[in-house]
Amino acid sequence: MLEQLKKEVYEANILLPKYGLVTFTWGNVSGIDRKSGLFVIKPSGVEYERLMPEDMVVVDLNGKKVEGRYNPSSDTPTHVVLYNRFPKVGGIVHTHSSWATSWAQAGRGIPCYGTTHADYIYGEIPCVRNLIKEEIEDAYEKNTGILIAEEFEKQEKDYQAVSAVLCKNHGVFTWGKDAKEAVHNAVVTEEVAKMAARCEMLNANVKPDPQELQDKHYYRKHGENAYYGQGQGE
Amino acid sequence: MLEQLKKEVYEANILLPKYGLVTFTWGNVSGIDRKSGLFVIKPSGVEYERLMPEDMVVVDLNGKKVEGRYNPSSDTPTHVVLYNRFPKVGGIVHTHSSWATSWAQAGRGIPCYGTTHADYIYGEIPCVRNLIKEEIEDAYEKNTGILIAEEFEKQEKDYQAVSAVLCKNHGVFTWGKDAKEAVHNAVVTEEVAKMAARCEMLNANVKPDPQELQDKHYYRKHGENAYYGQGQGE
Amino acid sequence: MLEQLKKEVYEANILLPKYGLVTFTWGNVSGIDRKSGLFVIKPSGVEYERLMPEDMVVVDLNGKKVEGRYNPSSDTPTHVVLYNRFPKVGGIVHTHSSWATSWAQAGRGIPCYGTTHADYIYGEIPCVRNLIKEEIEDAYEKNTGILIAEEFEKQEKDYQAVSAVLCKNHGVFTWGKDAKEAVHNAVVTEEVAKMAARCEMLNANVKPDPQELQDKHYYRKHGENAYYGQGQGE
Amino acid sequence: MLEQLKKEVYEANILLPKYGLVTFTWGNVSGIDRKSGLFVIKPSGVEYERLMPEDMVVVDLNGKKVEGRYNPSSDTPTHVVLYNRFPKVGGIVHTHSSWATSWAQAGRGIPCYGTTHADYIYGEIPCVRNLIKEEIEDAYEKNTGILIAEEFEKQEKDYQAVSAVLCKNHGVFTWGKDAKEAVHNAVVTEEVAKMAARCEMLNANVKPDPQELQDKHYYRKHGENAYYGQGQGE
Repeated sequence: MLEQLKKEVYEANILLPKYGLVTFTWGNVSGIDRKSGLFVIKPSGVEYERLMPEDMVVVDLNGKKVEGRYNPSSDTPTHVVLYNRFPKVGGIVHTHSSWATSWAQAGRGIPCYGTTHADYIYGEIPCVRNLIKEEIEDAYEKNTGILIAEEFEKQEKDYQAVSAVLCKNHGVFTWGKDAKEAVHNAVVTEEVAKMAARCEMLNANVKPDPQELQDKHYYRKHGENAYYGQGQGE
Repeated sequence: MLEQLKKEVYEANILLPKYGLVTFTWGNVSGIDRKSGLFVIKPSGVEYERLMPEDMVVVDLNGKKVEGRYNPSSDTPTHVVLYNRFPKVGGIVHTHSSWATSWAQAGRGIPCYGTTHADYIYGEIPCVRNLIKEEIEDAYEKNTGILIAEEFEKQEKDYQAVSAVLCKNHGVFTWGKDAKEAVHNAVVTEEVAKMAARCEMLNANVKPDPQELQDKHYYRKHGENAYYGQGQGE
Repeated sequence: MLEQLKKEVYEANILLPKYGLVTFTWGNVSGIDRKSGLFVIKPSGVEYERLMPEDMVVVDLNGKKVEGRYNPSSDTPTHVVLYNRFPKVGGIVHTHSSWATSWAQAGRGIPCYGTTHADYIYGEIPCVRNLIKEEIEDAYEKNTGILIAEEFEKQEKDYQAVSAVLCKNHGVFTWGKDAKEAVHNAVVTEEVAKMAARCEMLNANVKPDPQELQDKHYYRKHGENAYYGQGQGE
Repeated sequence: MLEQLKKEVYEANILLPKYGLVTFTWGNVSGIDRKSGLFVIKPSGVEYERLMPEDMVVVDLNGKKVEGRYNPSSDTPTHVVLYNRFPKVGGIVHTHSSWATSWAQAGRGIPCYGTTHADYIYGEIPCVRNLIKEEIEDAYEKNTGILIAEEFEKQEKDYQAVSAVLCKNHGVFTWGKDAKEAVHNAVVTEEVAKMAARCEMLNANVKPDPQELQDKHYYRKHGENAYYGQGQGE
């Protein structure tokens, strides 16, 4: 079932080592078929080098495995919550990519210091707090997803415009309209995390990009007046 | 038309990922044929991996597309202004290369801390201010070019000796006698941006290179008394 | 003798340059056959590019060479002590990998700032003191091993949960159930050393990961309630 | 003439891009035949990708070109002085490798913070001052060599034990018993420059390695009691 989606999700997973976002098995990508309400995700702990499209695991929106010989990623409950709470998301990525994770370990969101960031992500990439002991013991991965969704609601962030989040002391989740775009946003997040860190090293008092410049770059690529690219909606 | 120039500009574009200056489509190179007043530039948003020489777009010095099935780079109006204001420039590069962009995000020009810099670029690589809201809304890319040209005039900088500029919170433009040399200067800028950042980390009170050392290195490679290389003008 | 183990240890050695952990010959891996009490180690000063499985040297737990045309690694006496003092260790790695060695040169252990660290190593990676002059002159490599073992006892650290140590002003030793896992832990150590350094750069007052989060991640991969992976004990 | 030496020097030059020590043509290696008093050096400004063994230039110890269709490296007069003043040197390297050059731009020698450094270079890698205006205008490259030799004499440094030097605001020279060993020392210098910079970032008050540890590492690889490697003098 969902063979085409498995292939797409497999290919998106393979992009993670290609772009240097993962060491060993420290990452996973999923993609959803909204019609059937089923999503496809990397199996847990399987090395990228020996991963095959048919190894992908099919899971439903209650987190139940529907098909697959392997266990799904241990982060599956987080993906389940995000698909439920963010209904227009078509693909999700989790990594421990090193610059983004350094910000997460520092407990800081990534300010928008430039147009590279503004081109793809609108405003700061937030960093959500640690789960408390009860949340961890109760259902760590599920509560991670709930925390992310609640923070976006509380801060009134549009998850389609802010397609990345850091989890304090942990790593990064990104998403997009499909698995490939979610990986694209993971690459963007790592790149802007790197440049923002170096930027602060060069100017300890740096301020975020002026709002009008952020708006200009975001909206020349997104929305009805976008003019970047070849006019096919990106 | 301009098939040879298209090939050269295509090859110069391909050098950007080769030298690690671009992620995805975040960069573009153009090259001009001064006789016809036409320049050739990368199409907007097309991935480097599937770029072909025939995809290059021909544009005139009013910014009008003359030939090509794709839209030209969204930064084309900046190239137009620079070709008009800097008449001896034959090629232009724009990238978000990560060290140079970190300086741009920090809002700082890159001081000349050593001979690697002085060998190719005379004195500080300047960082021009943000455009104000009206300039952004009116004609962002065109006004970026105007700002660069005006800053060079105001600061009395010779654009042939200072072949790179940072745009605050954005990225870097470089140029040269042709597209290939413009890429060369983009590589130089990224390399000196990296070394200057690390140099400041090692010595918070570092001062620019003494002027006589800058002069020595610049003039052993440029001008009538140059003696570096094999005597063919470089 | 021990041809299969030689092959495994050879392959583990070859992983060091593959993962970017060594320059030239600055590293070595050994693996032990606990039944015979013999271990296999890289020869001293032989380049990785021309290393062959049959070049591996067989040594006993008194440090005596049992087989091999080459001298064993000059760090062999350290391996001997660690195999004797850490009876469940099956493989040992020594490198000067650059981020971990930077921490060692700084004389600091690597705090556990995140789940990447907690997934594999329980708590801080300690940094043992310099040997004093008498210890160096008497038996430098042997005393290095003794110091490590004594520090683990003194600090009541479980060497199976903390599978890495820094030696001040020197480099890093890691271990595991076999040579391959020891290399895995060397890669983990280098990666967390990098992220921890950058994390401190981003937040000078950063604190280690909350204990409950460290526990969660360590125990979802280790021990009887582990649920990461495919249920084969990892 | 000197065809075997040309081949060795060519191969040593090719190692510079292999080890990431040069961008474009920013580096050169030479090797000397002490019997004839002639040395072989890279031609000036020729790209590594199209370099051939027969392009190497033969120069005598007065700096006169003896054979070759190209001009020798513009740094040739520095090599001439160093060969004359350091009679046991058989090969010399000059690069702008980025970490070492960052220290040079910062105007600082590289302290010996660990055994990676102590294994190959005895004590601090010194950084010599800027040449003054008259020295630059008179004979820049020659005076660079004289300054290095005089600093080593003044500081009573043994050039065989300290096989690297930084030139303020410029780059690095290293040497060795032949061209290949000189490149080896250039790689060591870049690696220890990187680790020393990061080490200071982690501990602003770090002190050099204790002297007895430096001695131990240096002398286990060098001199009559060396025991590292396979007993062939290294």
